[in-house]
Parts: sequence; structure tokens; C-alpha cells
Amino acid sequence: MTDATDGTDGTEENPAQGSLDDSFHVFDTTLRDGAQREGINLTVADKLTIARHLDDFGVGFIEGGWPGANPRDTEFFARARQEIDFKHASLVAFGSTRRPGAIAADDPQVKALVAAGAPVVTLVAKSHDRHVELALRTTLDENLAMIADTVAYLREQGRRVFVDCEHFFDGYRANPAYAKSVVRAAAEAGADVVILCDTNGGMLPAQVQAVVQTVLADTGARLGIHAQDDTGCAVANTLAAVDAGATHVQCTANGYGERVGNANLFPVVAALEIKYGKSVLPEGSLREMTRVSHAIAEVVNLTPSTHQPYVGVSAFAHKAGLHASAIKVDPDLYQHIDPERVGNTMRMLVSDMAGRASVELKGKELGIDLSGDRELVGRVVERVKERELSGYSYEAADASFELLLREEAEGRPRRYFRTETWRAIVENRPDGSHANEATVKLWAKGERIVATAEGNGPVNALDRALRVGLERFYPELAKLDLVDYKVRILEGKHGTSSTTRVLISTSDGVGEWSTVGVADNVIAASWQALEDAYTYGLLRAGVEPAE
Amino acid sequence: MTDATDGTDGTEENPAQGSLDDSFHVFDTTLRDGAQREGINLTVADKLTIARHLDDFGVGFIEGGWPGANPRDTEFFARARQEIDFKHASLVAFGSTRRPGAIAADDPQVKALVAAGAPVVTLVAKSHDRHVELALRTTLDENLAMIADTVAYLREQGRRVFVDCEHFFDGYRANPAYAKSVVRAAAEAGADVVILCDTNGGMLPAQVQAVVQTVLADTGARLGIHAQDDTGCAVANTLAAVDAGATHVQCTANGYGERVGNANLFPVVAALEIKYGKSVLPEGSLREMTRVSHAIAEVVNLTPSTHQPYVGVSAFAHKAGLHASAIKVDPDLYQHIDPERVGNTMRMLVSDMAGRASVELKGKELGIDLSGDRELVGRVVERVKERELSGYSYEAADASFELLLREEAEGRPRRYFRTETWRAIVENRPDGSHANEATVKLWAKGERIVATAEGNGPVNALDRALRVGLERFYPELAKLDLVDYKVRILEGKHGTSSTTRVLISTSDGVGEWSTVGVADNVIAASWQALEDAYTYGLLRAGVEPAE
Repeated sequence: MTDATDGTDGTEENPAQGSLDDSFHVFDTTLRDGAQREGINLTVADKLTIARHLDDFGVGFIEGGWPGANPRDTEFFARARQEIDFKHASLVAFGSTRRPGAIAADDPQVKALVAAGAPVVTLVAKSHDRHVELALRTTLDENLAMIADTVAYLREQGRRVFVDCEHFFDGYRANPAYAKSVVRAAAEAGADVVILCDTNGGMLPAQVQAVVQTVLADTGARLGIHAQDDTGCAVANTLAAVDAGATHVQCTANGYGERVGNANLFPVVAALEIKYGKSVLPEGSLREMTRVSHAIAEVVNLTPSTHQPYVGVSAFAHKAGLHASAIKVDPDLYQHIDPERVGNTMRMLVSDMAGRASVELKGKELGIDLSGDRELVGRVVERVKERELSGYSYEAADASFELLLREEAEGRPRRYFRTETWRAIVENRPDGSHANEATVKLWAKGERIVATAEGNGPVNALDRALRVGLERFYPELAKLDLVDYKVRILEGKHGTSSTTRVLISTSDGVGEWSTVGVADNVIAASWQALEDAYTYGLLRAGVEPAE
Repeated sequence: MTDATDGTDGTEENPAQGSLDDSFHVFDTTLRDGAQREGINLTVADKLTIARHLDDFGVGFIEGGWPGANPRDTEFFARARQEIDFKHASLVAFGSTRRPGAIAADDPQVKALVAAGAPVVTLVAKSHDRHVELALRTTLDENLAMIADTVAYLREQGRRVFVDCEHFFDGYRANPAYAKSVVRAAAEAGADVVILCDTNGGMLPAQVQAVVQTVLADTGARLGIHAQDDTGCAVANTLAAVDAGATHVQCTANGYGERVGNANLFPVVAALEIKYGKSVLPEGSLREMTRVSHAIAEVVNLTPSTHQPYVGVSAFAHKAGLHASAIKVDPDLYQHIDPERVGNTMRMLVSDMAGRASVELKGKELGIDLSGDRELVGRVVERVKERELSGYSYEAADASFELLLREEAEGRPRRYFRTETWRAIVENRPDGSHANEATVKLWAKGERIVATAEGNGPVNALDRALRVGLERFYPELAKLDLVDYKVRILEGKHGTSSTTRVLISTSDGVGEWSTVGVADNVIAASWQALEDAYTYGLLRAGVEPAE
């Protein structure tokens, strides 16, 4: 009935894959509605990365975009089907009901939805009478026909269909009978879930609860909730709908979304799992929540909110003093949950990002047993603290962390080469083109190396000069590729004098690793990250250090 | 009975001053609980400035700190009484019940509360049995005696008294009878309001509503609510308590507070005024809300949250092109309130999702009427699309968009100088330090300029060289400051050969504007954004173009 017609795997009966049952839906729309946030502009590669994070985290549905509406979203669906092996999530294509007066089977926009190949389609439908008349410019009856026709057609094409009733709550206030007739039309045509959307975000929890309760009683349809945060109540509105019987919640990672934003996925699932005792994620997922939240913020290039519930760096931070001794007696007196349940940590002082336990766990993950050596773990924690204070971030730079850990464990750094100096020159030519040239002076295996290269930017020129200089000594470097490069300016209120953090991802065709550099300028920070990137690549390749 | 003994005005009978009646309290604790936020560190002058803003805004009570607990708070009360002529608010001193086994009249901490001279005192009291035993180390009965004794003593001293029941909701869950006996003890001793505090912030609205309802029915005391935001529901929890009969809400400006923060004053009062239709602020205050929120953020030295409900820069920003045409028809279809009611404005974001309608709306916002010129609008849309395809983003770069729009409208670009070439050199010295030097060759007012400068990074060096070269011709540049700098690498999957987008924010001390540059390397992109930044700054200053 609801088979996956994604072209790669048509055998599955139930698109709610993996370990999740279908009785409650955690539906993520970061890639579609979340991308509406001011300042977010996602590439296809960004979208694929975020989809992987969300699937790992264990949401049931990932709404990927509007195929056909823009080429980027079309490409995303094509590549997601090929490149991602979803463990938990079903991919969802978003689109609109057919045009007035047409038939669904002939509507190009509807056909693009089918062509996207996602097993699930969310259709947006108007449910506010004024919107039907003013924005759609059609009759109330034709709007119902558009919904019924489009849902039925997509069901015939083997898709599972959800219907988003746009502006539902405002529409319900204006014309409750019509709003409910939209819900009935969608459900009767075969939509599995009808989602009541507070599109303008003006609702408060008590109102949401009352409306959901009534609509559920009057229509009998399976209901979902989509809340925007314009009153600062999106999380509470989502929970109020669940209290009233909704069994499908639409959220976005970190609450990204248009205007103020959408209901934030993380506090919603945390409340459901911890406060309601409802199992809505795969076993163990909640402990990954803080990491996933920060990783997605990195991809969209927004600083993770320090004060976000559950996952913010400050969410379990206590200003020492009055409470300090009592917290020692019993931390549960001063925090509403154990922060480890959501992968966060209690902090008594400023920096303490990496506790002993997480360093030990990380060591274990890297195959280095640290549990016997308290003094070593202490040294690593101290160095991480000190470096994070000056702007480093090891959360997204596993390889740099491993190099640091090995340096402490082995008593000296892994070194394949030593930098004497480097120089980068960027010049704007009178014709508007740029010349980028870099020179590096290095030592490797006892020899001094001077190499110069050009590139399409100063970092690219430095990267090439480094390879030109070293490949004779380390032919393994030829296999390495820089696959991602990110820059973050820290302490944004100092203009161009701020500290710069660079993250570089490198691949050897088998795996990928990330390294970090921090300096007062972007070139110097990039150089540090490049040094770590190649050092780690050689370590991975099993090359013996020989400075 | 409750006369104001603040030393400046002892004549008023009712300390709920000005135009506010006493039936509902908006109680602000930004200066006390809000200052617990990680990263906030207020001077006495800061506190006085914030108190003035809050009083202007029209809150009923301003909790200024804990006099006696630290010299800064003691000084604040002394100066506030002398320096601020409160129009609306009553000043509140915060403190604790007397020590176990003592008497209130002899307790130095209680005496300091009286000495502060504020007409109102909030006493914090334990209401969770385990906290009494583990943190206070006394008996449950002695805790009740401490509350009754301290309240009665302060009443004798002519103070109005509120009692904050710390950890009330956790305490109520553990031992409801004891928690209620604390409320009764406070009310019977003369406390006007007993505030139920969700100190650990773990509650959800439905739970808050149920507890407040029961406690109100069982004790008959006037109740208030103090919510922390650890579940992301502080605003909703505050409103749930009001629904259940609480008539006193404790909040902080912008939700500042320990860990995740406190209930945010602004969405709470906006909901009460707009959604409940309850008059809780002086007439006209709500229109000042956006300004007051941003002004307080300035004082505490935190960037105002762009996505804060009601008052954020993005709170009424629309991105989707789909909606833009309908917004022209009727803006109320797409926003839950008229932003002017809270002193904010609707903004149309120009992006590749946008069409003609959003360019026209944007022109209107900039004071350029485009509605008559279809061909011009078409040209602007085409250029924006084309440039956004190559990586530009105008939604966060208003100034660059305005320059583009003016160029199309006026037939040629605004130009104050012309770049011949520039060059930046970054060199790593053998000692690990960096040298950054830039040279620019420019033309302005018919003269050729060659200028060189050093900086702490290549962009900073270019910025300085540009100013050194131009300030002789345009002294207005001296007033401009780069206040923010952001780098985004586009198409992240091409390593260091990616396209780079730079956003620069510039200030002239009065306003701020943002410009964008895109190029194959970060230095060239920064140069473009710098050119636009200074061109726009000169345009704003009313300087005539003279290349």
C-alpha cells in the first residue's frame, strides 16, 4: 500500500523504517521550512549532511524540500535516494495541491512530486476561507476538490500522503465549519495524517489544545501539529496538541524557520521522552541530542545558541557560589534532569566543555584505553579546556583531537614535517582577476624544502605549495583531497580584528576527517588546520613519523 | 499600610505607582535573576540605566538586587533612590528569610533589606522539604517560623512583602502538604503575594496550571509565578499560571537568566495585552517594546537576538516569494499581529525565492517608489537572481541591495573612488608570529592614491590601507567602524577551491548596515564588501559621488 517507491528499495511495506513504530511521528522539516530562516542558505551538500544527522538521530520523517519548485531541491531528492542509506527516517517530498480547474494527474508540479521518488508526500492545502479566495483565487468547493483529487492521485501512485492545513488555526477562528471540511476532505481522500498548522504563529497553548480536541472529536482524522514560534510558545503549542490527541509533530532542528522560527525539535522530543515517558526516538538517541544540535548548526553556519534548552552550552551551567556546596551534596536539587540524558554536561565554571568521562569515552572510541591513567586524562582535559578558551572547538574536529590525545599519551607530537615559514600573496590585477601565490619553507626527513605554488585563493595556494613540497617524501599525500572548508569568525563584534576558526575536512577516498585551526587571521588559521589535516592523513595511512 | 518608605516620596499610599492598578503585577527581575546569566556582568551604572528603561516601559516592580549580599547591590539601591524618579515602577529589594534559630529583627541580612529603603521586599523561602533539610540544614517547622517571623518583621517596618517559594513545583511533587504550608505561613504573616517558583525550570504548562489551580483553591493566597526556561516553555508556563488564577508574573528582559534563562518579559506582556486583551502596561507602552528590548541588550552588551518573538529583527521578516504577492494584497494574512503594535516593522527579504512583489515592497521600505516602473523592477529581479546564483545573498546585505537598486534606477553606480589594484601579503615569521601588509592603488577626485598599511590579518590590513588612502578626500570615513564580519564558504564540497561569501556590518555610530562580497577567495570577497560598505557609508552621510 505504502511501499517505498524511491527507486532503490521497493520492497519495504512500511515507510516508517527501522525501529520506529508508526503510532507517533517525529517529523522534521529543517530542510524545507527550517531553510526559510533568515540567513540560512543551504547547498545540496549541506542538505545531504543534515539529512544524515537527522536520520542518525532517529526522526521518523525528513521533509527534504519542494522538488520541481527549484533545481536545488530536485537535485537533493535525486542524490539523497542514491547516496543515503536511511536507517530510521522516510524521506518526504513537499508540494502543493493541484492548480484550480486542472486535474492532478496533469499538473506539472504534482508530477514533479511523484518524480522525486520519495515514499511520502506532504501536500500543503489552504484551510482558511479568506486565503482560498484572496491567495488561491478560487472557490471554497474547488479548494476541497483540489485536495481530494491530489491526495487520491498520489495514493494511486503508491505514495503515503500527509496534508498540511496551512493557516488552520486562523481559518478555524474565521470559519470553523470550512476548516473542518478541509480536514475531512483530506482524510477521506486517503491522507494518513492531517496536520493543523499555526502558520502565522500567533496561537497560545490553551487555544491550540481546545481546537485540536474539537477537530479530533468532530472529524476523527489522525491529526498532527505544525507550530511557529511567534508567541514564544511553539514547543508548548506542540505539546498542547499532543495532550489533545495529535500523534504527529512537525519540528525543525534548533527551531530554525521563518520569522521567529518553528517548534524546536530538541525540546519537543526531550519533553516527550523524558517528561511524558513516551518512546519517540530509537533507543539511546537522546544522548546524541546535544552533539546533533551543534553539528547541524555548524552545517548551516550559525553559532549554536548557548542558551537553547537541553542542548545549549549554558543549559546546565551554574554560576558558582550559593549553590555550589549544595550541588556537590546532590546535583539533582539544582537541575531538572541529569544533563547526560541529552548528551550535555553540568558546568560549574566557565570553559569546562570536556569532562574526564568524555575524554575517556573519546579515547575508547579511538582505540586508546585511558581509563587506567587518571593523570593523563587530567592533562588532556586541561589542554582541551585551555585551547577551547582560545577559540578551538574539538567537537567538530575529531582528527585534531586525536592528534592532541596521542601527543599527550606518547609524550611528543606526531610529526612528518616541520614548518619554517610560509607566505601568501593575493593580488588584484587591473583586469579584475586575482593572482594568488604561496611559498612554504619546510623540513622533512632531514631535508629543507622550499616550494611555491599558485591557487585560486591564498589557502588553495598554500595547500598546493605544501603538497608540491612534500609529495616527493610522502607519495601518500597524492590520495588526499580537501572536501570541505569552513570559516567562523569568533567574537563577532570586533570587525575584522576578530579571532578566526577554520575547520577543514579531508578525505582519502575511504574515510573523512576534520581538523581545526585558530588564529588572528584566516590564512594562519587555515595553515594550522592544513598541517593537522595532512599529519592525520599520513598517520591514517600507517606512515612512520620522520620529521 | 503599604506606604512607600523609599526616602524620596513617603506620601504615596499605594506603592504600585503611576497609572497601574494593583490587581495584576508585571514584576521584572532582570537586575537580580537576569544578571545570573552566563556572560552578564552589570555595573551599578548599567543597573541604573536598565531600571530607567524598565520604568519607562511601565513594569510595576523592578527587583534591583540583594542589598547587603554584595556592595554593588547596596550601592544600586542607594543611588536608585536618589537618581531615579520612578514613573511607574516600585523598587524591590530581594533577600532571604532569617537564619535558623535567630530572630528576624537581629539578622544582619534582614536589616540590610530594611536599610536599602525600597518600598517592597521579596523574600526567598524554601518550600521543598529536601532543600530545607539538605541546603538549609534545619527542620521543616523552623523553616515555617523563619518565614512567618521575617515577613511579620518587614511588615512592621512598613514594607510590602512578596515571598518567592523556591523550588516550589519540585517541592509540591515531593510533599504537597508541606509546600502548601509554606504558602499559608507566608500569606498569614502578611505577604501580599506568594510566588510559586519553578527554580529548576523543568515544568510544562499543563502541570503548572494544575498545581497553581490546586494551591490557589487550597490556600486562598494571592499567587504569582516565576518560571525558568529549561524546557523551552517559560512563557507558556507563565501564561498557564495566569490561566489558573495567578495575578503576578516575574520575568526578565529578553529572558536573561541562569542556565537557559527566565520567562521573557516581552512575549509575556505582549500575550497578556494583545492575546488576552488585558491591560497590564501603561497606555502606549507596547509600541516601545522593540526599542526597549534592544536598548537593554546594548547595556548588557549582548547582541539582541534576531529571532526573539515580537521584537527580533527577523520576527516579521518574510522570505518566501510565494507569499510576497499575497502579502501585497493583505499583510494580515501572513502575520499574527501588526508589527507596529510592538514597535517592530515588517521586512521583505530579497532572495532568489523572491519575485517582483518583494523587490517593490523592498523599494518602498527604502523610500524608492518602483511600482510605476515594471521594466526597472524586472531588471532588478534579474540581477538579484543572477547574482544570488553566483553566491551573493542580499537578504542579509541591505546596503549592497540598495546600491544595486540605485544603480539600476539611476543608470550608473554610485562611486566615490575607483580601485586600480590591491595586494595583500601574509607571512609567517620563523618565531610563529604573522606579518600582514596590504597595498591599495585607487583613484578619487581625479587623483591617484597609493597607500600601504599593516593589520592583524590581511583583511584588516586592506581595510586600513583603504582608509589611509581615502580619508584625506572623505573625512566622513573616520566615523565608520566595522562591527561584524562573517565568512561563508559556499558549495562546501570543493575544499579550498570553493566560492567565498563575506558579509560585513558597518556602523557610523547612529545606524548599522551590511554589505556582501563574493569571490573565489576570502580576501577578494572581503574587498568587495569593504568597497560597498564605504560607498554606502558615504551615501548615507550625504556626500556627493565624485570618482
